[in-house]
Amino acid sequence: MTQITLLSDFGLVDPFVGLMKSAVLTLCPTATLVDLTHDLEPQDIRGGAFWLERCSCWFARGTVHLAVVDPGVGTSRPGVVLEADQQLYVGPHNGLFDRVIRRARVQRLHLIELQALGIARPSATFHGRDVFGPVAGLLASGRLSAQDVGPEMEATPALGNADRSGQGAGEVVVVDRFGNLITDIECTADPEQQPSHVQVAGFTLALSRSYAEVAPGELLALVNSFGTIEIAVREGSARQKLGLGRGTPVTVK
Amino acid sequence: MTQITLLSDFGLVDPFVGLMKSAVLTLCPTATLVDLTHDLEPQDIRGGAFWLERCSCWFARGTVHLAVVDPGVGTSRPGVVLEADQQLYVGPHNGLFDRVIRRARVQRLHLIELQALGIARPSATFHGRDVFGPVAGLLASGRLSAQDVGPEMEATPALGNADRSGQGAGEVVVVDRFGNLITDIECTADPEQQPSHVQVAGFTLALSRSYAEVAPGELLALVNSFGTIEIAVREGSARQKLGLGRGTPVTVK
Amino acid sequence: MTQITLLSDFGLVDPFVGLMKSAVLTLCPTATLVDLTHDLEPQDIRGGAFWLERCSCWFARGTVHLAVVDPGVGTSRPGVVLEADQQLYVGPHNGLFDRVIRRARVQRLHLIELQALGIARPSATFHGRDVFGPVAGLLASGRLSAQDVGPEMEATPALGNADRSGQGAGEVVVVDRFGNLITDIECTADPEQQPSHVQVAGFTLALSRSYAEVAPGELLALVNSFGTIEIAVREGSARQKLGLGRGTPVTVK
Repeated sequence: MTQITLLSDFGLVDPFVGLMKSAVLTLCPTATLVDLTHDLEPQDIRGGAFWLERCSCWFARGTVHLAVVDPGVGTSRPGVVLEADQQLYVGPHNGLFDRVIRRARVQRLHLIELQALGIARPSATFHGRDVFGPVAGLLASGRLSAQDVGPEMEATPALGNADRSGQGAGEVVVVDRFGNLITDIECTADPEQQPSHVQVAGFTLALSRSYAEVAPGELLALVNSFGTIEIAVREGSARQKLGLGRGTPVTVK
Repeated sequence: MTQITLLSDFGLVDPFVGLMKSAVLTLCPTATLVDLTHDLEPQDIRGGAFWLERCSCWFARGTVHLAVVDPGVGTSRPGVVLEADQQLYVGPHNGLFDRVIRRARVQRLHLIELQALGIARPSATFHGRDVFGPVAGLLASGRLSAQDVGPEMEATPALGNADRSGQGAGEVVVVDRFGNLITDIECTADPEQQPSHVQVAGFTLALSRSYAEVAPGELLALVNSFGTIEIAVREGSARQKLGLGRGTPVTVK
Repeated sequence: MTQITLLSDFGLVDPFVGLMKSAVLTLCPTATLVDLTHDLEPQDIRGGAFWLERCSCWFARGTVHLAVVDPGVGTSRPGVVLEADQQLYVGPHNGLFDRVIRRARVQRLHLIELQALGIARPSATFHGRDVFGPVAGLLASGRLSAQDVGPEMEATPALGNADRSGQGAGEVVVVDRFGNLITDIECTADPEQQPSHVQVAGFTLALSRSYAEVAPGELLALVNSFGTIEIAVREGSARQKLGLGRGTPVTVK
């Protein structure tokens, strides 16, 4: 009963996710599939990278994470399998796995060689169904191990941009469905060691512990359940109240 | 193969539902998960309460309903397990279970005691993943029974508001994706005992039996497949045509 | 472990899909359910028909496709089971299966007789839960075969409109979440036999092989992963750029 998580920007309006699942289940009928999200903004590699790294710790060893945000599909961008801290990640090597790569203690990155796997002629536009889904199914079924998918590559971030986490500065990486502004500024759960204030767009907010610490409609900042700084409005939308979105700089002190 | 239904206002844009499912499956890998909805309007306890009560009869004895609409997360609002008519409900006691409590013939309500369950330090903002998901998984796996989650409480509605159903008056509680205005006015399936007319916003509508009884684009009222009065437009949207939404008063005669 | 796909215009905002799944799982608890889409535009029979025919080849023999886009629910429009090329289709006979019927090499169409199946009084408005879900569950479980659901009918398209595919002309049948304009003009994967140009709304586009062949923001046409002509904008939306939608005529040469 291997678990396979799925994350993409395919949306749920078209049958793309269903077909990717079919590709997985054809090769591993007993897999348990868990959708993380398929409603990333189209081509939002950064949001996908954030959620993958923040969510994977909640899944068991051996979980396969199938992640496809793939604006370069059909080009020579490599498809890879990443082994990191006893979980596997399958998808395009375009930045989607960069946060996992930076964080992992032990990891190996393997290039997917299509011909060796018998995937002779995938479509040029849908590798979720034609490449990554089948590879995830083969890995989950145990019929393929990560080192068998192709040659090992150096496990370095694809985008190579600096990781600012831990520096007390970051940005809004995700705006969730409630309008909460989720940043990539990591923060300990220990109140003793947390910053006292958060600064965003000219506001300085004292750090709260839960949404309910302020009155409905009021702005607050807290350490969210993913261990990063979040700006929120109790029973309302910080996005609407502040008119801010992804990419907004945030600092803590 | 215990069934677990899931209902929340988490949306599907972020990985919150996936993480709640992971929490369930970690403790009960063989559970069959069925999503009722995760796209309730944020904080729409009333809509959630309506659907839970109207849907549960379609599920087998022993089904566990995991329901999280939780604006008070992080406060002292109690988390509970409700046993009602041989099904279990897990979530915050904030009104979400009020309709089930009013309707059930036999029921018991138990407070979830975190420490007794070994849930030492849940996050302050995501009890779906940290409390209710794990409790649902333990219940579904049979490793925990309802009386073991904590002390019994009096099984009374959390909001205590009057239940007007059966009085011939009610309101629109849900606007569905077709724009149908679904009320909480319950109605028998027996045409002999149904009201003849429905009044809403100055309109008086004769009760129809199906959408197809009127011409496309026309307004109608009927007893929907959930046993309540609904105002609809054939192949159109009553919300758009009437400009009405949740909370609109409706009467029958 | 029979697979059952689900396709509808129910949306995911209300619990309609969950209740249809419950109806299936009650009769076939071991089925593996795969959602194709539930976010077809309300009453979009043509879009549903397109996806069903284009997707079914990706599923195994014996798969049951449960498809409900049903504006005529409650009228005398027949409910059917279609056996086509060793897969089964369950739903209303209103055009939803027309493309499969035209395409299949071997097929039989059976009328669903409710009384013979013990479905005495379905609701007038939700046959997904009350008729088609249970029939799909019975078929998937092996307790019912297609010929047992009711008398055989002539397997002809319900709408009877001409199939223009193969004539070098067609129309946009689906606009996907990326804003790609997907047509029903089928096209071989063999570049030698593909048309050289696509015409839409006064534009003549050379056929590309992948999105990445043009610069970001530029318009292109290609044969998509479903084997039909598609008009797209690289990392953008053709719908937005061209202001076009479903029904737009397209020709190839």
